[in-house]
Amino acid sequence: MEHGSAILLQIFLIFVAAQLGGALARLVRLPAVVGEIVAGCLIGPSLLGWIAPNEPLEDLSQIGVVLLLFAVGLETRFDDLKRVAGSATAVAVLGVLIPFACGTLWAHSIDPDWPRSLFIAAAFVATSAGITARVLKQLGVLQHVESRVILGAAVLDDILAMLLLGVVTGVQSAGALRAGSLIAVLAEAIGFVLVVGLVGTRVMRRASSWLDRPSDSSLPLALVLALCLGLAWLATQFGLAAIIGAFLAGMIASESRQRERLEEQTRPLLTLLTPFFFVLTGAKVELVQLANRESLEWLLTATVLALLTKLAGGWLGALKLGPRGALRVGVGMVPRGEVGVVVAALGLAAGVFDQRMYAVLVAMSLLTSIIAPPILALLFAGRARNAP
Amino acid sequence: MEHGSAILLQIFLIFVAAQLGGALARLVRLPAVVGEIVAGCLIGPSLLGWIAPNEPLEDLSQIGVVLLLFAVGLETRFDDLKRVAGSATAVAVLGVLIPFACGTLWAHSIDPDWPRSLFIAAAFVATSAGITARVLKQLGVLQHVESRVILGAAVLDDILAMLLLGVVTGVQSAGALRAGSLIAVLAEAIGFVLVVGLVGTRVMRRASSWLDRPSDSSLPLALVLALCLGLAWLATQFGLAAIIGAFLAGMIASESRQRERLEEQTRPLLTLLTPFFFVLTGAKVELVQLANRESLEWLLTATVLALLTKLAGGWLGALKLGPRGALRVGVGMVPRGEVGVVVAALGLAAGVFDQRMYAVLVAMSLLTSIIAPPILALLFAGRARNAP
Repeated sequence: MEHGSAILLQIFLIFVAAQLGGALARLVRLPAVVGEIVAGCLIGPSLLGWIAPNEPLEDLSQIGVVLLLFAVGLETRFDDLKRVAGSATAVAVLGVLIPFACGTLWAHSIDPDWPRSLFIAAAFVATSAGITARVLKQLGVLQHVESRVILGAAVLDDILAMLLLGVVTGVQSAGALRAGSLIAVLAEAIGFVLVVGLVGTRVMRRASSWLDRPSDSSLPLALVLALCLGLAWLATQFGLAAIIGAFLAGMIASESRQRERLEEQTRPLLTLLTPFFFVLTGAKVELVQLANRESLEWLLTATVLALLTKLAGGWLGALKLGPRGALRVGVGMVPRGEVGVVVAALGLAAGVFDQRMYAVLVAMSLLTSIIAPPILALLFAGRARNAP
Repeated sequence: MEHGSAILLQIFLIFVAAQLGGALARLVRLPAVVGEIVAGCLIGPSLLGWIAPNEPLEDLSQIGVVLLLFAVGLETRFDDLKRVAGSATAVAVLGVLIPFACGTLWAHSIDPDWPRSLFIAAAFVATSAGITARVLKQLGVLQHVESRVILGAAVLDDILAMLLLGVVTGVQSAGALRAGSLIAVLAEAIGFVLVVGLVGTRVMRRASSWLDRPSDSSLPLALVLALCLGLAWLATQFGLAAIIGAFLAGMIASESRQRERLEEQTRPLLTLLTPFFFVLTGAKVELVQLANRESLEWLLTATVLALLTKLAGGWLGALKLGPRGALRVGVGMVPRGEVGVVVAALGLAAGVFDQRMYAVLVAMSLLTSIIAPPILALLFAGRARNAP
């Protein structure tokens, strides 16, 4: 009985491409994530055309990144994050303002339409927590203070990016802003993160013994997975990315006494599902739109600008950690990953810019995601456990 | 940034419903699978309407059942299956012929159209390996000879059901049959199972030491998952269900020295993904079509017929195991599960019968899947490890 065989082939190809890409990347001493993104670009519609991103694959990719951030949350303590709140806030705010300002000026130099320039600049702003988190996790340095600052800043960054997108969409469509509603949105999002984080971790610390009872059953895993999926959805209801909710769920679960067992059990889930996220991210770049001199120049400038401005913002914000620590944080904030892709897709859908600018912004997001991980690995070298 | 939030909510609801349904079922000493199917029926379009089966959910469900059969394969040795080949073949052949003959007569008594009657009868034939395998796995009795006969027969059953569907579709559309092409299909399918099973297990026995090398990495899991997805797809290319390929992949992996570790790592994947399969199976029943006396009578007769004929076929085929063993095998073959649903859906799509007969056949499939597991658990009681 033949049913669903097309999707099975795609799933198989994506999974194998990710494994091969990851293995090759490690062979030349690059983080696996780079190989997975490049593999996605290779088997995607731009080159081989073996896979085409569609709704079921997008959903698998979404589940994959949700589980990844859940696993990262599992290795993160809320109290540790609170301790770096100051640095993380400085990194997030500067890491949003500097790229946004410079991005606006660059976009304006190409096309003197202010609302459009603001929208384009929004794609320079957001940080992809997924990509950096994966690299930090694989390096085994999630416990370092720099990693905590990066993760804390990535959460705040998502809140700020959401606000900024609200602003530029408002400017674009109405030419005006309702400051009151923006403040309400901001308050809601911050409130969600704080309430879930504070209440959740406290409840878990008390309830944790209850989870211990069934010693070899899968019940604790099922409960925290339910929490993960529930908070991921709830986060989207507060205008945040699903991964923020998953990260919070992981942090809550990390307070339980079953933490190590949960980490162990989460690993196979990541093996199966996270490749979809990275391969699909790579599959989204449209190389054909970039095959001309002007587009390539735009892409080059945009990528350098995106790199340097985010690096500067992160570095300035984290100077308290010393120049080397600040550099790590700065580089850790660089990957735009899927968040840049989402902003670009919104702009394209709203008719703000054309296919070419869309391709440039997507390729820029991917390039930052490919360039930053090896540098980050290098900066952490020596201090890292030799994780796979 | 809000994206993919609708699917997240559905995933959350399905996951939680499955956990609650499973827990409640266990509370009243029923197998968890019964609770999950009923939960699906409850939150599905028929009653609460919280979820609606769609393509992404179907794909998750497909991945879930593929992984389940992979896990069952992991606990099964190809050599053990070969040893019960005789009984399994008898069970499969009688378990197809008796239900098909009786189903045809019943359908003919309702509507004297022979081609249509044959198609309806096809829904009485196939056994859902997924549901029985889940029950046997949870009871911890996969190593018993009866379980091996059931699994071997389920694989053959899928081959025979595929052939039969070829026959009835041929009769339906052309009124004639090409015996040659059917024999070719049969030979291909049996050849696929034998070649993959024999060659795969041999290669794995030799290559297994190679898998051992990276002691704590996820590479062995990634390799066997790639094998699982690849064979699942390949099976569909031979006209078989994807789960047959996944089962073979699991059997091949069970020959590796990493088997216990792989079993351990597969468990979290099942926790996350198999609920989708069982909840979606339940969500497919359309209660409104059954809300009249005649439909309910049809449903009652069809269910009793499906139960008794499959039981008789399995019992007669497995008499070599003694009356109690044969009874276990017979009951183990009863669940129609998703296979009956697929046949019914094909018939509906081809315009062979109407929404009402479709609803009856789907509900019959579900009822057999809900009735058989508790009886199976009872029959195995005493001999079972007290697995969760």
